[in-house]
Amino acid sequence: MKLIEYADANAEVRAVYDDIMTKRKTDYINNFWKALAHDPATLKRTWESIQQVMGAGELDPLIKELLYIAVSVTNGCEYCIASHTASARVKGMSEGMFGELMAVVGMANETNRLVAGYRVPVDERFKD
Amino acid sequence: MKLIEYADANAEVRAVYDDIMTKRKTDYINNFWKALAHDPATLKRTWESIQQVMGAGELDPLIKELLYIAVSVTNGCEYCIASHTASARVKGMSEGMFGELMAVVGMANETNRLVAGYRVPVDERFKD
Amino acid sequence: MKLIEYADANAEVRAVYDDIMTKRKTDYINNFWKALAHDPATLKRTWESIQQVMGAGELDPLIKELLYIAVSVTNGCEYCIASHTASARVKGMSEGMFGELMAVVGMANETNRLVAGYRVPVDERFKD
Amino acid sequence: MKLIEYADANAEVRAVYDDIMTKRKTDYINNFWKALAHDPATLKRTWESIQQVMGAGELDPLIKELLYIAVSVTNGCEYCIASHTASARVKGMSEGMFGELMAVVGMANETNRLVAGYRVPVDERFKD
Amino acid sequence: MKLIEYADANAEVRAVYDDIMTKRKTDYINNFWKALAHDPATLKRTWESIQQVMGAGELDPLIKELLYIAVSVTNGCEYCIASHTASARVKGMSEGMFGELMAVVGMANETNRLVAGYRVPVDERFKD
Amino acid sequence: MKLIEYADANAEVRAVYDDIMTKRKTDYINNFWKALAHDPATLKRTWESIQQVMGAGELDPLIKELLYIAVSVTNGCEYCIASHTASARVKGMSEGMFGELMAVVGMANETNRLVAGYRVPVDERFKD
Repeated sequence: MKLIEYADANAEVRAVYDDIMTKRKTDYINNFWKALAHDPATLKRTWESIQQVMGAGELDPLIKELLYIAVSVTNGCEYCIASHTASARVKGMSEGMFGELMAVVGMANETNRLVAGYRVPVDERFKD
Repeated sequence: MKLIEYADANAEVRAVYDDIMTKRKTDYINNFWKALAHDPATLKRTWESIQQVMGAGELDPLIKELLYIAVSVTNGCEYCIASHTASARVKGMSEGMFGELMAVVGMANETNRLVAGYRVPVDERFKD
Repeated sequence: MKLIEYADANAEVRAVYDDIMTKRKTDYINNFWKALAHDPATLKRTWESIQQVMGAGELDPLIKELLYIAVSVTNGCEYCIASHTASARVKGMSEGMFGELMAVVGMANETNRLVAGYRVPVDERFKD
Repeated sequence: MKLIEYADANAEVRAVYDDIMTKRKTDYINNFWKALAHDPATLKRTWESIQQVMGAGELDPLIKELLYIAVSVTNGCEYCIASHTASARVKGMSEGMFGELMAVVGMANETNRLVAGYRVPVDERFKD
Repeated sequence: MKLIEYADANAEVRAVYDDIMTKRKTDYINNFWKALAHDPATLKRTWESIQQVMGAGELDPLIKELLYIAVSVTNGCEYCIASHTASARVKGMSEGMFGELMAVVGMANETNRLVAGYRVPVDERFKD
Repeated sequence: MKLIEYADANAEVRAVYDDIMTKRKTDYINNFWKALAHDPATLKRTWESIQQVMGAGELDPLIKELLYIAVSVTNGCEYCIASHTASARVKGMSEGMFGELMAVVGMANETNRLVAGYRVPVDERFKD
C-alpha cells in the first residue's frame, strides 16, 4: 500500500495535508493520513471527525489520548498504540500515568472475560 | 450460574465480602463478586488487584473508570459497561463526559480498523 | 430467526438431525443446529467438521471443550459459553476445573493486552 | 519501549527477576518481564498472579498453557503465541496436540460467529 | 439509558430526526438514533457519515449492508446484526445470500485464527 | 514455524497441493497452506471448506472476498488482509471499491461500539 506524499497528492488531498500541518503546527504528515489519501473522501471525513472528537471539551485532550490508547491496546493495533502513545507523551503523559493506564486496561480485559465466563447477570440497580 | 449470597458463603468468601462492604461503605455486594465467589482464590486475587489498580495514583479514579468503560465497550461486555458507568457517575462523570468518552471510543475503533485495512506502516519517529 | 424443528425440516436437514441424535444418543437437537438448518450446506459441513475436530485424538474431548470455552469467553459468545459449559460438565469438568479455566482465560486476556501496550518484541529464542 | 536489563533495574525489579530465575531454574528473563519492569507494581502483581494461576491444580500446567494459547490466538497476540507455544512444548505439547489445539480454536471462532449471526437463543436447558 | 423521543428532543436533535425520516421515507426512528441523541454532536456527525459511507458508489448499498453485517457478527453486536439484517432484507438480501454471508464470515474468522496460531509469514508477493 | 514445501510434503499433503495448483491454475502455493500442512487433516478440511464457501453462489466470488477482508480487518489479521486484498484485486476489486469497503468497515466498527456503550435495546420490529 503506497503512501501518498504531498508531491504526488491531488488538490483535495493537499488541502487536508495543508490543514493538518497548519493546525498541528508541523511539517510532518503521519503515515496514517498518507495511506487514507487513497480515498480523499474518507481522508477528509476522518480528519474532520478527529478534530471534533479529540479536541478539548469536558474531557481534556490528554485524557482522550489515554482513552484512544486503551481502545487501541484492546484491539491490538500496533500502529495506533505507537502513534497515540507519542501524542499522549507530547500532551503530558508521564511514565507513571502510562503504567497506570496499562494496569487498568489489563485488568478491565481480565474482568470483562471473567464476567462473560461466569455469565454474571446485570444487577437490577445497574439496569437504567 | 448461581450467585453466592453472604449467608451461603464460606469464611474465605465472607472475609472478602466484609472487606468490600467496609472499604466501599456499602452493604451491597455486586453480582460480579457473588459469581467469582465460586472460586475463592480468584475472588480474593481479583479484589486485591482491583484495589491496587483502580485506586488514586497519577491518574484520578474517575479517569480510571472511563478507561475501564472504554475497554468494556470495545469488548462488548454489557455487565461491565453497566456497572462501571454507574461507578463513573458516582465519581463525577457528567452526561457531557460520557458523550465525549463514547465519541472517542467509537472513533478509535474506526481508525484502528482503517489502519489495519490500509496496512499503514509505523512511522520511523514512533518506533521507540 | 426461526428455529427449524424436525417436523418442518427437509430431507437433507433431517439426515443431519438423525445423525446428531444417533451419535450423541439423545433425542434433543440444540438450537444451534436448528438455526443452521436454514442453510443445509453449512449445517452439514459444520456438523462434519465438529465431529472431526472435537473427537478424541491426542487431546481428550474434555480438554477440547475447555479450549472451546476459552475461545468463546474471549469472544463473549453467551450461547457458546452456556452450551459448551454444559457439555464440559457432562464430560467431567468439576467446579474446580472451571474456576481454574476462568482464571487462566482472564489472566491471558490481561497479559495479551499488556504485551500489546508495552509493545514487547518477540524474544529471539521464540522466533522459530 | 526500552527493555530493562538486570544491570539497570532497581531493587524492587531485581527481586522479581531473581525470583523468576530461581523458580524457573533459568538465567533468562523474557522480554515480557523486562518491559513490565517499567512499572514495578504491575511487574510484581503479574508475576505473583501468573504463579497462582498457571501452576498445577485440578488442571495440569500443560493444559493451562494450551488454554493460554487458545486465548492468545483468538486475540491475535503474536508475542504471547510465540512465548507460550515455546512453554507448552517444554511441558510436553506434541506436534499432534498443537494441530488439534489449532483446529479447535479455529472451529470455535467460526461457530461463535455463526451463533451471533443466526442470533441463536440459548436453549432453556443451558440456562442455569 | 433513556431513549429520546421526538417530543422530548431539542431543536438540534429534531433536525436530524426530521432529516432521517425524510430521506428514509419513514416516520420511524431507530433506537440507535434515539440513544445517540444524548450527544447531539455525535448524532449529527454519525448520521452524516452513515449517509456518505453507506450510499451508492462503486459498491451497491446492499453489498455495503452485507459488509456491515460481517463486521457486526465478528464483533458480536446483537443490535447491529438485527437492524442491519432487516435493512439488508429490505434492499434485497435473500435467504440464500444470508446463508452464504454467514458461511464466509464463519470461515474467515476460523482462518484468521489459524493464521495467527501457525504464525504464517506474509508471502513476498502479497507485500505490496 | 517451518513452512512445508512440496518436496518435503507427504502424499496426503501433496494431494492437496496438487489440487490447489490445478483448480487455481497456478504453480504457487500460499504460505497459509504450507503452514497448515503440519496438520494434514486440517489442511484438507480447510481447503475443501474454502472451496465450498468461497465459490460462486447467490453471492459473487468478488463479494465474498470483500466480506473476507471486512472480517480480517476487524480481527486485525495482517496476513489475511494482504492475501485476500490480492485475491480481490485479481477478481476485479478497483481502488474505489477498496476505499468504500474500508469506509464501511471503519464505520461499522465505530457504530458497533456506540451501540454497546449506549446500551441500545433492539427495536421490537427487529426482533424476528
